[in-house]
Amino acid sequence: MADKAPWITYRPELKVLDCTVRDGGLINNHQFTDELVRAVYDANVAAGIDYMEIGYKNSAEQFPKSEFGAWRHCDEEDMNRLIGDHDAEKTGLKMVAMADAGKSDWQAKIVARADSVLDMIRVAFYAHQVSEAVEMIQHCHELGYETSANLMAVSNISETEIDTVLAAVEPTPAGTMCIVDSFGYLYREQIDMLYKKYTEALEGTGKEIGIHAHNNMQLAFANTLEAIILGANRADATMAGLGRGAGNCPMELLLGFLRNPKFKFRPVLALLQDHIHPLRETVEWGPLIPYNITGQMNLHPRSAIKFLGSDDRENFVKFYDELIADI
Amino acid sequence: MADKAPWITYRPELKVLDCTVRDGGLINNHQFTDELVRAVYDANVAAGIDYMEIGYKNSAEQFPKSEFGAWRHCDEEDMNRLIGDHDAEKTGLKMVAMADAGKSDWQAKIVARADSVLDMIRVAFYAHQVSEAVEMIQHCHELGYETSANLMAVSNISETEIDTVLAAVEPTPAGTMCIVDSFGYLYREQIDMLYKKYTEALEGTGKEIGIHAHNNMQLAFANTLEAIILGANRADATMAGLGRGAGNCPMELLLGFLRNPKFKFRPVLALLQDHIHPLRETVEWGPLIPYNITGQMNLHPRSAIKFLGSDDRENFVKFYDELIADI
Repeated sequence: MADKAPWITYRPELKVLDCTVRDGGLINNHQFTDELVRAVYDANVAAGIDYMEIGYKNSAEQFPKSEFGAWRHCDEEDMNRLIGDHDAEKTGLKMVAMADAGKSDWQAKIVARADSVLDMIRVAFYAHQVSEAVEMIQHCHELGYETSANLMAVSNISETEIDTVLAAVEPTPAGTMCIVDSFGYLYREQIDMLYKKYTEALEGTGKEIGIHAHNNMQLAFANTLEAIILGANRADATMAGLGRGAGNCPMELLLGFLRNPKFKFRPVLALLQDHIHPLRETVEWGPLIPYNITGQMNLHPRSAIKFLGSDDRENFVKFYDELIADI
Repeated sequence: MADKAPWITYRPELKVLDCTVRDGGLINNHQFTDELVRAVYDANVAAGIDYMEIGYKNSAEQFPKSEFGAWRHCDEEDMNRLIGDHDAEKTGLKMVAMADAGKSDWQAKIVARADSVLDMIRVAFYAHQVSEAVEMIQHCHELGYETSANLMAVSNISETEIDTVLAAVEPTPAGTMCIVDSFGYLYREQIDMLYKKYTEALEGTGKEIGIHAHNNMQLAFANTLEAIILGANRADATMAGLGRGAGNCPMELLLGFLRNPKFKFRPVLALLQDHIHPLRETVEWGPLIPYNITGQMNLHPRSAIKFLGSDDRENFVKFYDELIADI
């Protein structure tokens, strides 16, 4: 059966991570209301999602509290205030925070898992930061957390660099290694190549492969499916694709594809209607044309974000000409 | 080289068809200004596009001229008025019209290719109309046209029905058989299955396989790429994805993927900026949440179109509950 029509069967070991608040907060410096964050939490529980990433465990020195909301730092007291009643076993939902290499006071600020609502720390890093990332993974593992190694901007480094990172991650206790297409640049054939590379390098370690896609070229959902088809068992998505720039793989599309009956579509729809859709009045995201262009050019979306904030925002040709001139 | 990084090489035989005016006209009864249609034509020429589908050759009795614009009928005098100066050889662009089985006065209204600016007729049909479609293809072929067989709503019929249609199309002179995902329901694995089925049934006939995808689940571009990767040499796209409901594969994304240097991105961008983007003030298209839902449910988008025209348009849960209740 699975061989003949794999799109109507499912793998129980496939787990979905909602990173709406963590990734979406890059649009608005994590200035979300408690009401919104709690609504995302409640929807994740109701929808049967496996993991919810509630924010960054990043430094309040680098990201001052006068400017950045609570979910840039994920202080234990903020998490306790909002979801102090959280029970991972009862809800089936594990809570996650991301810590950025180079931006996190991880030695000081990450407490033992037993003393936190968090179950998992995902370590995000660029290739040149892999040594710190390995230390962070080891540290968090010793504190009792599940861990994930998220090598960012993979489309921007050479295969030799990727191989070196994989070799460094291989002996760590990280449970997951995530393919992260930060610039929304990858086509399916490149996802295939990376999936193969990651699995070969990590064979025998029991590590799962994850996928975190961006939607610059309207490929976030498709590339997430591709990784899942190949065997990735950890998939990231956000509600309505909320996320910086073009945004992420939309949860409502991913849940429509997944056939595990534990996933419920309707609570996600209700969240979109009552909480996420209204956000569009104040923040903008999605695969707009300037993001199509930066995606195609393998560029960070920052130039497109800046352009879309300018009076010239519909002058696509000007934006394109300026990027071309810069190359 | 092609084997190692196929996404940076190209197949010269791969041809792109712009169906902006034909498919987009389903939103507004083909009430486009001459200026817009001419701008699309000029952009296609400048961008090196291979085919432009300018509208339907459908019946003025069924689609009265009081209600429908010129591009629902593609009368020769309208085409001559707008692009009477067209030279396929000089521009590299072939002009196309679509004729719907059951909706076209094709015996009376399709003139000899020598007397028309058109080079190709695409015959669109549902499975039960295949006998008329075969007659239409034969007729148009005898008049000198390139022809394409476009079996619509392929996700809604059984494989036995698809096989029967393919067997009927196989001996016709149609140069292309197109995979048409009318409801935007297909995932990549289903595209794979259909591509394999179409190629096996038509092997040895020299027919090309085409792909016409809809964007209900943000998969139109991805599914178009998938068919291309498999070997499809005819790909449909529209400017900014303009098309009924969720719309189509966006031309600006497709051209970003194609590496044939004859394709130029900038003229498309200029068209989007000056002509297509401004259309959003009066018509709506794109992968909105109600279209996600009809796509996932393998339904015609008409219920979503109706819903989005109502005062309740942001009550996604109500829309979903009503569809579920109908099943």
